[in-house]
Amino acid sequence: MDQDFKNTLEIMAKDVEDDLLSCFEKPFDAPDIIVSAMKYSLFAGGKRIRPVIMRKTCELFGGDIEDVRALSCAIEMIHTYSLIHDDLPAMDDDDLRRGQPSNHKVYGEDIAILAGDALLNYAMETALVGLQNLSPQQKNNGIQALKILMQAAGVDGMIGGQVGDVLAEEDSEMNAEKLKYIHSHKTGAILTASLLCGAVMADTDSNSLKWIRQYGEAIGTAFQIVDDILDVTSNTQVLGKPAGSDLEEHKTTMVSLYGLKSAQEKVEEYHSVAIQALSNLSIDTSFYVQMANFVCNRVY
Amino acid sequence: MDQDFKNTLEIMAKDVEDDLLSCFEKPFDAPDIIVSAMKYSLFAGGKRIRPVIMRKTCELFGGDIEDVRALSCAIEMIHTYSLIHDDLPAMDDDDLRRGQPSNHKVYGEDIAILAGDALLNYAMETALVGLQNLSPQQKNNGIQALKILMQAAGVDGMIGGQVGDVLAEEDSEMNAEKLKYIHSHKTGAILTASLLCGAVMADTDSNSLKWIRQYGEAIGTAFQIVDDILDVTSNTQVLGKPAGSDLEEHKTTMVSLYGLKSAQEKVEEYHSVAIQALSNLSIDTSFYVQMANFVCNRVY
Repeated sequence: MDQDFKNTLEIMAKDVEDDLLSCFEKPFDAPDIIVSAMKYSLFAGGKRIRPVIMRKTCELFGGDIEDVRALSCAIEMIHTYSLIHDDLPAMDDDDLRRGQPSNHKVYGEDIAILAGDALLNYAMETALVGLQNLSPQQKNNGIQALKILMQAAGVDGMIGGQVGDVLAEEDSEMNAEKLKYIHSHKTGAILTASLLCGAVMADTDSNSLKWIRQYGEAIGTAFQIVDDILDVTSNTQVLGKPAGSDLEEHKTTMVSLYGLKSAQEKVEEYHSVAIQALSNLSIDTSFYVQMANFVCNRVY
Repeated sequence: MDQDFKNTLEIMAKDVEDDLLSCFEKPFDAPDIIVSAMKYSLFAGGKRIRPVIMRKTCELFGGDIEDVRALSCAIEMIHTYSLIHDDLPAMDDDDLRRGQPSNHKVYGEDIAILAGDALLNYAMETALVGLQNLSPQQKNNGIQALKILMQAAGVDGMIGGQVGDVLAEEDSEMNAEKLKYIHSHKTGAILTASLLCGAVMADTDSNSLKWIRQYGEAIGTAFQIVDDILDVTSNTQVLGKPAGSDLEEHKTTMVSLYGLKSAQEKVEEYHSVAIQALSNLSIDTSFYVQMANFVCNRVY
């Protein structure tokens, strides 16, 4: 990875971390255990990639990072809640997350369900406080950006993708089209939203938003294929979650459908689509090029 | 129940019902089963009491019901998601809700968890679309009202109360104070928010908001005590959920703490507090008086 790019990610992630911590400085009118469960997963070493993308995008398109500070904390809370619920015994039943016991292994299923609910809810609260602090001219953009985020997180986006994933386990007729729906919705939607929210808050024109969306969808899909590949080629220690679990669970993945080589070729294809989309933007896109390289060249 | 009051409730509930239905007229980009699961619980015969209170309050304080149309749909979706998650095996493990199989009995635990998540998320989406349609002058009130709703639904409100309820099952030192926390947060917070949101959208002064809050907290607590009483004095058919379950599960309730007679006296006390609070408002409060009578005089 390019050193400058790596430094940028680390510095910005540290800034996100501080902001997330400050969201939990206030006293809560609730039993300690629920706040503790929320913090356990939110501060479990996530790379803060979605909030960093949102902030960097806002900056690259000429906006003020202050305007997406709260909203980018919200996207990380939403991402975290989805991981807690995904790991539940009734869902993917994963005991490990980022190398640590998953939320329900520590707090029990009941508290884990409620911690997920609470993080989704607190994401919205946090974003609304941010909305109140925007200048009058920026409020409409703020409402628009928050709507984009909630749509991407909801039934038409991430939740729809997760439902597709749940159904896939029992589906004897899984195919590439259904898998693409899952990939683009489960992961791609929120990733794309992180770009769009940043751009909307920088008052970006609709044509640029279109290309930004295309870039986001391409790297989102590539990211998910790389995930499928890593499950086969990596090991549990590197992944921080059990490797080989897709195969063990007879899960249909890009690798099981196409084989390892074709799956790797598909990553290259989506990489090209992403780079192509960037060529239509009139800003400096080197951050996005490096992001695409990073997503497509992870450790396999 | 007063016939006019009953008619008002029914007419307004019908209007809410139509609005909720129209929220599901659009095509969703998701597997059918999740939309079906969301609708199963949302259209399961709820009385729509929270949205009706929000609309009526907005009207009584001189506001325009159009301004709370979306927000009042959101509060009903939030209420419904909380019921779906409460009924899960890892939580209260209830097989019946309003006389019908609960969501996870029909759709399975995984889809029920996601249907709850999706309803909370869709509540926010719906409220944000409503926010976009407000006049520029009303947008600040709209953001404020939505923030009140999300705080009442979140860890400082309903979720905190639900956590308290979960913890109470294992707590050998349950007392009146802890039970009051559960009651005021699990049910009272959202009920109070329905009043406050309506009043805020009618640009109500902060002094009136204070009395409205006091009224809401009093009837919210009374409602929960009546619920405890009904579990002892009513039957499964009338309740639409198993009667006597509190006793069976050795749950600490106002009845187990104080006995039936004292619990009934407490309902009367909270009723008086509610009526007293209303005397400080300069509007016609007969709707609220009847609401208090209705809450405190249910079928025991």
